[in-house]
Amino acid sequence: MQQPAASSPAPVDFEVEPEHYRHWSVAYDGAIARVTMAVDPEGGLREGYELKLNSYDLGVDIELADIVRRMRFEHPEVRVVVLRSGIDRVFCAGANINMLGQSTHAWKVNFCKFTNETRCELEEATGASQQAYVAACNGTTAGGGYELALACEEIYLQDDGNSAVSLPEVPLLGVLPGTGGLTRLVDKRKVRRDRADVFSTTAEGIRGKKAKQWRLVDDVFPRSKFDEKVAVRATALVQRYSKDLPAGERKGVELTALAPEVEGNDRRYRHVALEVDQTARTASLTITGPTADDVAILRRGGEAAQQAGAELWALRAYRELDDALLHLRVNNPTVGLVLVRAKGDAQTVLDHDAALVAARDHWFVREVLLHMGRVLRRMDNTSRSFFALGDRGTAFAGNLLELALAADRFYLLDDSSAPVHVGLGELNEGALPMAHGLTRLQTRLYGEQDTLDGLVGNRALLEPSAADDAGLVTVLLDDIDWDDDVRIAIEERVSLSPDALTGMEQNLRFAGPETPESKIYARLSAWQNWIFIRPNATGPEGALTLYGRPERPSFDWQRV
Amino acid sequence: MQQPAASSPAPVDFEVEPEHYRHWSVAYDGAIARVTMAVDPEGGLREGYELKLNSYDLGVDIELADIVRRMRFEHPEVRVVVLRSGIDRVFCAGANINMLGQSTHAWKVNFCKFTNETRCELEEATGASQQAYVAACNGTTAGGGYELALACEEIYLQDDGNSAVSLPEVPLLGVLPGTGGLTRLVDKRKVRRDRADVFSTTAEGIRGKKAKQWRLVDDVFPRSKFDEKVAVRATALVQRYSKDLPAGERKGVELTALAPEVEGNDRRYRHVALEVDQTARTASLTITGPTADDVAILRRGGEAAQQAGAELWALRAYRELDDALLHLRVNNPTVGLVLVRAKGDAQTVLDHDAALVAARDHWFVREVLLHMGRVLRRMDNTSRSFFALGDRGTAFAGNLLELALAADRFYLLDDSSAPVHVGLGELNEGALPMAHGLTRLQTRLYGEQDTLDGLVGNRALLEPSAADDAGLVTVLLDDIDWDDDVRIAIEERVSLSPDALTGMEQNLRFAGPETPESKIYARLSAWQNWIFIRPNATGPEGALTLYGRPERPSFDWQRV
Repeated sequence: MQQPAASSPAPVDFEVEPEHYRHWSVAYDGAIARVTMAVDPEGGLREGYELKLNSYDLGVDIELADIVRRMRFEHPEVRVVVLRSGIDRVFCAGANINMLGQSTHAWKVNFCKFTNETRCELEEATGASQQAYVAACNGTTAGGGYELALACEEIYLQDDGNSAVSLPEVPLLGVLPGTGGLTRLVDKRKVRRDRADVFSTTAEGIRGKKAKQWRLVDDVFPRSKFDEKVAVRATALVQRYSKDLPAGERKGVELTALAPEVEGNDRRYRHVALEVDQTARTASLTITGPTADDVAILRRGGEAAQQAGAELWALRAYRELDDALLHLRVNNPTVGLVLVRAKGDAQTVLDHDAALVAARDHWFVREVLLHMGRVLRRMDNTSRSFFALGDRGTAFAGNLLELALAADRFYLLDDSSAPVHVGLGELNEGALPMAHGLTRLQTRLYGEQDTLDGLVGNRALLEPSAADDAGLVTVLLDDIDWDDDVRIAIEERVSLSPDALTGMEQNLRFAGPETPESKIYARLSAWQNWIFIRPNATGPEGALTLYGRPERPSFDWQRV
Repeated sequence: MQQPAASSPAPVDFEVEPEHYRHWSVAYDGAIARVTMAVDPEGGLREGYELKLNSYDLGVDIELADIVRRMRFEHPEVRVVVLRSGIDRVFCAGANINMLGQSTHAWKVNFCKFTNETRCELEEATGASQQAYVAACNGTTAGGGYELALACEEIYLQDDGNSAVSLPEVPLLGVLPGTGGLTRLVDKRKVRRDRADVFSTTAEGIRGKKAKQWRLVDDVFPRSKFDEKVAVRATALVQRYSKDLPAGERKGVELTALAPEVEGNDRRYRHVALEVDQTARTASLTITGPTADDVAILRRGGEAAQQAGAELWALRAYRELDDALLHLRVNNPTVGLVLVRAKGDAQTVLDHDAALVAARDHWFVREVLLHMGRVLRRMDNTSRSFFALGDRGTAFAGNLLELALAADRFYLLDDSSAPVHVGLGELNEGALPMAHGLTRLQTRLYGEQDTLDGLVGNRALLEPSAADDAGLVTVLLDDIDWDDDVRIAIEERVSLSPDALTGMEQNLRFAGPETPESKIYARLSAWQNWIFIRPNATGPEGALTLYGRPERPSFDWQRV
């Protein structure tokens, strides 16, 4: 696989339409959806590998992410999603090894991050949207295949004397099961750590009753009764996940194509614009806030919001932001710094957020809020520096203030002739949590409980100096200093080692507690990134490099 | 620096006597101790670098660790330890860059791990032993120098227009402040994350009032009044840390030399034996439990324990274990698997632990328990596979059961003719926590609350099958299978990629919550390890490689 830079065949497109799925099909049957994985071996995103045995690459996972997202918006009647394979005796063989072997380090890491995000989305659908995912492992479930199952609420395995669940990455490839596998084993399924050790070093995996006894799966069913038993279980789960559903007619809202204007690396959406300066290695990311009309729609309530559907500002703007972030990550790997601006009127944003929160009993509004949270978490986990720039014409308030709080720094103009307002709304106080469970405001003011207490519930717009006093601003600059100081800060940032910045930002962005989700991105992914560049894995004689070839890997035995 | 393997000049010795310190001096003045760092530039542990400006290498940190440990045992009257520099206008310049640049990856990582452990010991002394460390930064405090200060309870900086605190690793070296710096900035001192971002990318650092305002230091004092102000503060802290002190005459207990018999790589201590098989890449680590006489001493109470002093089993055996683990880590880098055995009588171990806990109101006994906890956490953080082997003649009970629970697997012989007892005591239930705050028993049974509840408080010895039923045993084997099954497991383990095992074990050993301490070893150190092998840091044109030379580093700008 070539590195997806300017010279590579085509930028990766993260927008996909169900009628163009190559690897998945979905059957809807009332409250139950059946998602079938049948990966087209010839359908790889890049040349040079075959996607045999339901192994996957980024293209396969882009379709899965699309299914999970559409399920929530377009099929709100669904309570249980059964994931199964369309290939006999194989559920999923995990990430394609040849693809990994041929990929650059940056590609591998970005691929793993996206697949991790998709699996976290799938868990959030189960927990927050009452759409429970069930893995029906009707065959061999290996590596990333088992990690996909681990992200489901329940796992059922066919008991046919052959089908096993396994994490063969350590013994066969010399890398980690890096898509959440190790974390979910001990933290989510609470498999005993010593058994997890045995399991994760046993290439052939574990099957039958022992798999159940070790909590690796929830149950095993004979092949002849597998579909029937899974169907019974799915029906039972429909009952459980139908309790206390949010209000509103469960008529789906279609996620229409965003269809941005594309010009080179730039992308202009309706509310979001991404402009890339490859020479300066910076990008400008501008989001335009809601209008009074957008507020008026929300004030009419959840049904009106649902009627607006994919055109609703909060949904469309954040879908655009999500697409821009992904485009930035995968198609613009050398852009090191993103300059974030929020255009609009601060009071209107706060009015918008208040109206959105007032309608949150409605299922669609709730989904919109959950989606906003996911996009912001994608930003938190994007390994680029972000500077929020509050210059003339920008307004960081409410949900748009989250962008400034997610950024590594927030520069704000202190110009009394053109005040730039900052303000807090309900959406800064709980609805859009970071992966480690705190709000961005709590994280920012982790050491200033008094300041935090004074801010929470305060809905007055803050003048720049008041925002600075409240600890929201990194650097307050007057009109005379703005241009030079911001320019110098940008130049300095892009001159630093991109690796050191990635590591530094990962450590500074997440003060406080950790959750299984944040542990996946910090502890597990950091070790996986390390192992991916060790010669024992990816050197000429490394295990990942030589997999499938007759040669045996040769290890440097030094423990580090 | 050469890699400390068989061919290298001499194995590193972690035992040191105060009269042989080259880099530090300690002055005792009642409840206050003054520790002065004046690193001998010619005193590096290896050839090829000069330790200028109070920069340090492993040898310097071994002396500091010795000071911190002896302070607790030999100087229990001390309540406040003031760390200062003996060099004018320089507090500490951090880890020596030339040393890092010349070191192998494994050496760098082991060096950082040991320095991290020393800083965590220093924090534990403050929190648990009422010996508060105060950093008196009487000059430039850079990189690892500031990280050392961050590990102190309070930081005071000289305000002389020049002395600054700084973390210049990212801007100057392209690596992270990996000795806890980033974590302690946002998690311990709760510096705002955006300010931490500015600070960690500003090579010259921050001084004066701004350093105080940003919470980087607790106060700044003019040069002319610095010593006086620090002394006043130290005296005030003596009061605070003298409350509710544990009982017992505060007469120090000398930590006498362990002086093991050394034969090649093997080390025989009184209670611990380490035998290394370089060909098999395994080591056998055997600890012999306490005797009835050891129990009898403890039953006479804390004063009797203090009289036994460094000869007390619980202190001596764990000091030996600590030394063996360090010897293993640094001097035997290719040993991948450690076979842990605990010899002795299970009931005697439980009696011992009960007597130790009964005497814990005494300061010395409390220190012995804290020390045992630190050694076990060193084992948790040792990147080698551990298999506990419960064969004939071994007994894993009480504090020795912690070794089996710290191990990645526990093989137990089920032979009714020679029963091997397993048993729980008080020390399994809280006194020896892991870095992430849980006990090893809670971690092992993270998913089995009922089993855990049934075990806690149960003091009956468990037959092998009962121990297995209780979730304590990984593999129960009868006499017929033992030899073959254990041999095969060992052979399989040592055949796997050492890097993949390190990453896997780091993820499986710490189910559940994270603490600032565990975040340092997981999130921060993992990213640092990654960055240490990136070409942008350590390649021929990397920033760490070229530091101090006229050439500018050349970066691959791809963000990962």
